[in-house]
Amino acid sequence: MSSYFATRRSISLTANPSSLFYAPATKLPDTPLQRRGHSTSYRQCLSGIWIPKGVTSTSPNEDAHGKLVRAGFLRQSHPGIFHMLPLGRRVQDKLERLLDDHLRALGASRISLSSITSKQLWQQSGRFPHVSSEIFDFRDRKGSEYLLSPTHEEEVTALVAQCVNSYKELPLRLYQITRKYRDEIRPRRGLLRAREFIMKDLYTFDTTSNSAANTYVEVQHAYAMFFRSLGLPFVRVEANSGEMGGNLSHEYHLPISIGDDLVVTCCQCDYAANAEMLRNQVAVPLDQKSAQRDVDWQVWRGISKDRLTLINAWFPIRSSLAINSSGLSGAIPRVVQEVVPDLDSSVDHPLALWLKTIQRWSQRPIQHRDIATIPQVLNLIDYRLGADPGFRLREVSNVWGTSHVQQSVILQAKNGTPLDLVGDANADRCPRCGDGVLKVMKALEIGHTFHLGTRYSDRLGATVSLPGYGNPSTREMAAPIPALVPIQMGCYGIGVSRLIGAIAQYFSDDHGLQWPRVIAPFEVAVLCAPALTAEGVNVYDMITNSSRPRPIDVVLDDRPVSLPWKMKDADLVGYPILIILGKHWKAQGDIEVQCRRLGIRRLVRPESLQELVHNLLENLG
Amino acid sequence: MSSYFATRRSISLTANPSSLFYAPATKLPDTPLQRRGHSTSYRQCLSGIWIPKGVTSTSPNEDAHGKLVRAGFLRQSHPGIFHMLPLGRRVQDKLERLLDDHLRALGASRISLSSITSKQLWQQSGRFPHVSSEIFDFRDRKGSEYLLSPTHEEEVTALVAQCVNSYKELPLRLYQITRKYRDEIRPRRGLLRAREFIMKDLYTFDTTSNSAANTYVEVQHAYAMFFRSLGLPFVRVEANSGEMGGNLSHEYHLPISIGDDLVVTCCQCDYAANAEMLRNQVAVPLDQKSAQRDVDWQVWRGISKDRLTLINAWFPIRSSLAINSSGLSGAIPRVVQEVVPDLDSSVDHPLALWLKTIQRWSQRPIQHRDIATIPQVLNLIDYRLGADPGFRLREVSNVWGTSHVQQSVILQAKNGTPLDLVGDANADRCPRCGDGVLKVMKALEIGHTFHLGTRYSDRLGATVSLPGYGNPSTREMAAPIPALVPIQMGCYGIGVSRLIGAIAQYFSDDHGLQWPRVIAPFEVAVLCAPALTAEGVNVYDMITNSSRPRPIDVVLDDRPVSLPWKMKDADLVGYPILIILGKHWKAQGDIEVQCRRLGIRRLVRPESLQELVHNLLENLG
Repeated sequence: MSSYFATRRSISLTANPSSLFYAPATKLPDTPLQRRGHSTSYRQCLSGIWIPKGVTSTSPNEDAHGKLVRAGFLRQSHPGIFHMLPLGRRVQDKLERLLDDHLRALGASRISLSSITSKQLWQQSGRFPHVSSEIFDFRDRKGSEYLLSPTHEEEVTALVAQCVNSYKELPLRLYQITRKYRDEIRPRRGLLRAREFIMKDLYTFDTTSNSAANTYVEVQHAYAMFFRSLGLPFVRVEANSGEMGGNLSHEYHLPISIGDDLVVTCCQCDYAANAEMLRNQVAVPLDQKSAQRDVDWQVWRGISKDRLTLINAWFPIRSSLAINSSGLSGAIPRVVQEVVPDLDSSVDHPLALWLKTIQRWSQRPIQHRDIATIPQVLNLIDYRLGADPGFRLREVSNVWGTSHVQQSVILQAKNGTPLDLVGDANADRCPRCGDGVLKVMKALEIGHTFHLGTRYSDRLGATVSLPGYGNPSTREMAAPIPALVPIQMGCYGIGVSRLIGAIAQYFSDDHGLQWPRVIAPFEVAVLCAPALTAEGVNVYDMITNSSRPRPIDVVLDDRPVSLPWKMKDADLVGYPILIILGKHWKAQGDIEVQCRRLGIRRLVRPESLQELVHNLLENLG
Repeated sequence: MSSYFATRRSISLTANPSSLFYAPATKLPDTPLQRRGHSTSYRQCLSGIWIPKGVTSTSPNEDAHGKLVRAGFLRQSHPGIFHMLPLGRRVQDKLERLLDDHLRALGASRISLSSITSKQLWQQSGRFPHVSSEIFDFRDRKGSEYLLSPTHEEEVTALVAQCVNSYKELPLRLYQITRKYRDEIRPRRGLLRAREFIMKDLYTFDTTSNSAANTYVEVQHAYAMFFRSLGLPFVRVEANSGEMGGNLSHEYHLPISIGDDLVVTCCQCDYAANAEMLRNQVAVPLDQKSAQRDVDWQVWRGISKDRLTLINAWFPIRSSLAINSSGLSGAIPRVVQEVVPDLDSSVDHPLALWLKTIQRWSQRPIQHRDIATIPQVLNLIDYRLGADPGFRLREVSNVWGTSHVQQSVILQAKNGTPLDLVGDANADRCPRCGDGVLKVMKALEIGHTFHLGTRYSDRLGATVSLPGYGNPSTREMAAPIPALVPIQMGCYGIGVSRLIGAIAQYFSDDHGLQWPRVIAPFEVAVLCAPALTAEGVNVYDMITNSSRPRPIDVVLDDRPVSLPWKMKDADLVGYPILIILGKHWKAQGDIEVQCRRLGIRRLVRPESLQELVHNLLENLG
C-alpha cells in the first residue's frame, strides 16, 4: 500500500494554492490497482464485487425469487420495492444493452423521460380517473399535483406535440428504459409483480394509419428477435387494450405455471388470445350461432355437507372433444371444492336431496324460519360463459319456487382469477376457425404492443401538417386544403425487471439459476481452491487473451472459501460455463469444464481449454 | 422495403401453431437495416437520431441551458423536471461509464437502490424532521408513508445492516447512479438546480475510523482523477456537514460566475473553504483572539434620499491589506446601492444629516408623528461579521435616543446570498495561517464528500463483530470480550445531471456548446452537403476503419439540409472535431478539419485525415 499512497500524495490537491486548479491533462495516468483480491483493473474477481449471501438454508419449495435473494442478486427494501445488488445490476445492464441493440436496429432513439408527471396532464388525456387507484400521487411544496408515471404516453405525446410539426419529421420512434411505478394491490413473487420496476417503453409516431400498421408489424418482428435472442419461448396473443386505448393490441407471454394469466391457443389455426380477450370475442358470435353450432352449456351439481346449499357449476360444451369424462368427473369437483370447501363430494343425487331441504323449509311456520338456515343456490360460472350474453341461468328457475331461495353467483376463483371449471383438459372451440379446440395455459405477460391511433395525440394536440399545407399554390387549387392531422401512435412495453424474474424462474432447476449467455452476470466463472488462486489467474488470462473479436466476460472466484463451497455457489448463481481447477487438475493437470444448460461436463488439457469454451459459448447462442 | 418485408413474413409468428414457440436459436440472424438514412446498423447517422430543433432565434444573454434546449439535448417537462433527449442521453451515458471506470478502480461495486423509501426509516435515522420541507412524500393505497429519496444513507445502511455481519466483509464500497428527488424552493438554471436529477452516490463502510480516514483520502484521490479526466478545474473546500451528520466534509466546486456558492481560498496556505464554513470557523477564534490580532470592524454610513433612513454598512478589518481605498470608496457604496436603491450617494456627512431628522421628529407633537415618517436605521452586515458572536452593533446605540428609532438588520443581498460588502477586491485574513489574504469567488458545487462516522450505523443497527468475537477460546481470556461495533461510514456524491449543466456552461462560447472528448455525444462529426452524402459515408468509413484499439465515436450528418446550416448546428451541439466536405473538397479534394477547443482549422488530403484526427483526439485528452 505504501507506494500507492506515495503516488496519491504526490498529486495532493491542497499542497499549495496553485495546485488547487487542475489544467486539462492530455492523458490520464493509470488507475490504481484494485484494492482487494488478485485482480488488476482489467481482471474481474469475485473478491472485488459485493455479493452478500443471505439465508443459507433453503426451503424445498423455494421459487426463483428466493434463489435470486439467496444468490445475492437483489433484496427487498419495502413491499414490492427492490434494491438491485451488483450481480442483479449486471444482468439488468446486459438486458438493457440487448434491448438497445434491438431497438437501434428498429431505428428508435433512446430518451429518458422524467419519472414525475403532472396530474393535470393525465386529466387532459382522460386517463387519470381510470388508473388513479394504482397511482402514487403527491403534491409539491406549492400544492401542485404530481404523480409517479406508470407509463409515459402523456409525457411523450406532450413532448412530441411541442417538438414535431411536419409529416417530414415522421415516422419517429422513441424509447426509454426507466423506472415505473404502480401501487399494486398485491405485490408478490418479487420482480414479477413489483410496485417500482424497470420497463422498456417504445412510442411510435406515424402520419397515416397505414404507416402506423407497418410500424406495428416491424415492432412485432423486433420483439420476436429480442425474445429469441434470450432463447425464451413466447406466445403472442390478441389482447384487450383496456385503459390504454386504441383498438389493436397483443401481449407477449411466457408459458409458465406461476403465470397470472390464462392464454388460449387453437390447435388448428393461428388463433392465440388472452382468455380475458376470448370472453369478449366469444360473447358476440356465440348467441347468434348457437343454433347452427350446437353450442350449449351443461351444469354439474353438488350439495353442501349441511344440505342447505345447492351448488350449480355451469360450464360450456361446444365440441364433442370438450365433453370427456375426466372433465366431468375429475376436474370440475376439484375446482368446486376449492371455492366451496363445504362440498360433500360423496352425494350421488344432490338436486333431489336439496329439493327435500326446500320442501322442509316451506313447511315450517314462518316464525321458525331462521335466517341462517335459508336454502341457498350457489352458481359457479365458468369464465367462458360468464361474459356470454346468451347464457342465462334458465334452468335454475325451473327447479324451485322463487320466494324461498337465496341465490348467489361466483365468477372468480379464490385467487381472483376467472373461474375455469373445465381446466386444461379440454376447452372451447376456436372462435376464429370454428373447428380447432382451444388449449388453455398459464402464462406470464412479458411484453405488450398497442396500436393507439389518435387516442392521445387528439387530446394532447400532437398534430403534423401534411404535404402542401401552408403552401399558397396548393391552397388556390379546388381541392380541400390539406390540414393538420393528429399523429398515429403506438406504444410497446417490455417489463425489464419482470423479465429478469421470469427468466430466473423459467430456466432455474434444483441446483439454482441458469442465465441465458447474453444476460448472465458473467459468461464464464473460473473456480479453484484458495491455494490455487495464482493458477486460476493464469487460466483467466488464457481465456481472455484471445484474438477473437468479442471478448469473453469471465470472472475469477478468488474468495477465501473452499472449492466445494464455490461450486455450490456457482451452481446457485447460474453462470453458463464453469471452469474448475479441482482434483483432476491436482492429479493430472486436467481442467474440468461444466455447462449445466447443455448437460456437459468434460476434462480438457489446458491447451484445448480456449477452443472448448468458445465452442460452448457458440452453442449457447 | 419489399425484400425486408418478405424476410419478416417468413418468420411470422402466427402462420401456424407450431411456430408459436421459438426454440432457443444458436445464432441471431442479422438485424434489419436501419430504416432511414444512409446508415447500416454499424454507421451512426444524424438522420437516424431524433434531434428536435427548438427556438431558432437566440437571445444575446442565452445561458448554457438555453443552448442545451436549442441544440436538442433536453426539454423541461415541469418546473425543475426534465426529459433527456437522445443527444443528452448520450452525454449522460458516457458520463456514467466514466464514473463507472473511476469507481471500479476504487474497488466499489455498483448497485441500484429503490427510489421509494419509507418515512419510518427516515424517522429512525432522525433525519426526517430536518429535511421534510424538501421531500416529496406520499402514502400508498394502504396508508403507509413513503418518500422519494433525495439521498440513500438510510436505505444503504439498512441494507448493509441486514447483509453484513463481520469485520471480514469490510471494507465495503457501494455506489449507484440513479434519480434523486428534492422539492427545491426555487428550481432554476435547468439542470443546475432541478427537482428530479441524477446523482452518483458512493457509500463506504469500514471497521475502524482509521480505515475510514484512509477510505476518505482514497475517494478524494478518485474524485480528483475523475474531474481531471473531464478537463475540469475544481476547488476542493472544507465544508459544513449540515443535516448529513458527521464531522469531516469537503465540497468540490467549479469556479464559475453563475455559481450559487462563495468559496474562499488563501493566497499563502492550502486553506480553502465554503464561505458558509468560514463564518463558522472564524466565529469562535475571532472573539478570543481579537485582542492580540487587532481584529476590528468599521462602519460605512449613508443616508436615503428622503433623509429618513440612516444606512450603516458594517464590515471587518483584520489586516492592513484589507483596508484599501477601493474597498471603502468603491465597492461598499456599490453593494449598498443594490440593497438600498434609495441611497443618496452624493452626501458627505450622512450621520449629521440624519441626526437633524431625529431632532425634528422628537420636537413634533405626538399626534403629528406619522408612522410613515419614523426615522429608521438600516444595518447592513457583512457575512463575516454576521456570524461573529463578538460583533454587536455597539456603536449604533451611542448615537441616538432609543425610543424614536426603528432599527432593522440586513444580512443578505437581494439574490439571497450572504452580504459581501468588501467584495472580491479584498478579504479576510486566513483563519489557518493567519497571514494570507482570502480570495472570494463564486462557485458551483459539483461534488461532496462526507465522513459520516457512526451517525447512521448507530441508529440503524449496522454493526460488525470484531476479530475473536463469539470465539470461546478468546472469551475465556481475561481481556474484555470483543463486541459488535457500529460501522464507520462515509458518503460521497457527484451530481451527474448538474455536472452536465455545469460542463455545458463552463466550456460554451458564443458559437455554442463544447464538450470534453470523453463525454461528447459524438467525438467527430462528418458534415457535407446532401449531394455529397455518399462521399461523406466514405470519409466516415475511412476514420472508423482503423486498426487502433479504441474505436472513434463518429457521426455522419446525412440530414437533407444545407452544409452552412449543418456547420452552424454542429457548432451549437459542440462536437470536439468537425470534418467538412465543403468548397475545398469540391475545388481540390481537400478535407477541412476543425477543432474549436484547440483553435485548429486545417485542410488535409484524404490520406492524411486519419492521422490528424487521431492526433487531435489525443491532444483533447
